Amino acid sequence: MTDMRVGLLLFPDLTQLDLTGPYEVFRKTPGFTVHLLARTLDPVRAETGLRLLPDTTLADCPQLDVLCVPGGPGVNPLIEDAEMLEFLRVQAAGARYVTSVCTGALVLGAAGLLRGLKATTHWAAHDLLAQFGAIPTQGRVVRDGRVFTGGGVTAGIDFALTLVAEVMGAEIAQAVQLQIEYAPAPPFNAGNPETAPATVLSAVRARGAPMRAKREEIVARATRR
Amino acid sequence: MTDMRVGLLLFPDLTQLDLTGPYEVFRKTPGFTVHLLARTLDPVRAETGLRLLPDTTLADCPQLDVLCVPGGPGVNPLIEDAEMLEFLRVQAAGARYVTSVCTGALVLGAAGLLRGLKATTHWAAHDLLAQFGAIPTQGRVVRDGRVFTGGGVTAGIDFALTLVAEVMGAEIAQAVQLQIEYAPAPPFNAGNPETAPATVLSAVRARGAPMRAKREEIVARATRR
Repeated sequence: MTDMRVGLLLFPDLTQLDLTGPYEVFRKTPGFTVHLLARTLDPVRAETGLRLLPDTTLADCPQLDVLCVPGGPGVNPLIEDAEMLEFLRVQAAGARYVTSVCTGALVLGAAGLLRGLKATTHWAAHDLLAQFGAIPTQGRVVRDGRVFTGGGVTAGIDFALTLVAEVMGAEIAQAVQLQIEYAPAPPFNAGNPETAPATVLSAVRARGAPMRAKREEIVARATRR
Repeated sequence: MTDMRVGLLLFPDLTQLDLTGPYEVFRKTPGFTVHLLARTLDPVRAETGLRLLPDTTLADCPQLDVLCVPGGPGVNPLIEDAEMLEFLRVQAAGARYVTSVCTGALVLGAAGLLRGLKATTHWAAHDLLAQFGAIPTQGRVVRDGRVFTGGGVTAGIDFALTLVAEVMGAEIAQAVQLQIEYAPAPPFNAGNPETAPATVLSAVRARGAPMRAKREEIVARATRR
């Protein structure tokens, strides 16, 4: 019987769907156990207000087989959080897979875990990966050896199914896909900058500009260290 | 300025992704507010163990514009829960939209809210809709007037984007889609019974057989009343 210990990191202002998509997939996979990790067991408030309860503190976390960092505005402080980055480095040293969804990749990068590796992240932060020595690579899910990175938010579902297939084989991954009826049919073809209407893209970019500026500053500061 | 009050029902043993997918979409839509509804403000444990915190009790719930019931194993007791069904009927009477994701449709059905209407639900429960007088209809998202029903689990994202487009127009929905990078790329084509390999389908059906039998019994009892 496979026993895969997955750890998903919970932190204030995460994008909850980065975590809850993969959580559903991993929890429906036979032999997978999932730890929701945080500094304390207090509720964690996502970017959008949803409050989730962790079940394992970082201090009590066993060695994980799969380390997974989701993204969201809340990655900004993590990029400069020496204690968190050290936790990730120590776990990564013993893990079979080191993974992220969305801008969680920036945290892996800040921990030095993407150096020389192909990786992806949310389209609005994609180029920033290079500052951590990663090779920014287009793809819904990008694999480089034991490192799997997913694109923005909803890519977490594709990432998780891909990892389940790697570990358990295609049939198990397909069974999970069928259970969660993952036969997506978006009402529009606007899910990335290449396909979204130009007016939509420029509106989203404009709204995201302050976050982007802040992130550039934090990443520059982190990489100067 | 649009002000749309959405209420998402939280209950024990729900499938959390039925709720967290639409939650992310609605919370990223300008002018939408979202209430996470439950009997009390205590944490609610999903089918998979994830604990979520509600923010509004049923007793304190204002009149909603969008009523939304997600699914999961936990719908079984709701189908025979007179108090909950009454809450839904009262809210539905004043709501602009009455909606569900996955097997949440069975709860709408039990409340008498789908009579004579086209509706969908998770593939493994699809035919049961007929017992509540609904017209089981294939589709990722099915609309009949003000009633929108989504298919299983991940269909909640497609459903929510469809509803946002209906209320706010295509450009706003596309902007949300772009923010959550919803350009899905499942690693397999196995998300519904028509496309899944036969061996995978029969394994999933076999594992779901006890749940299906239990549900048939509950639906039959509820519709005899």
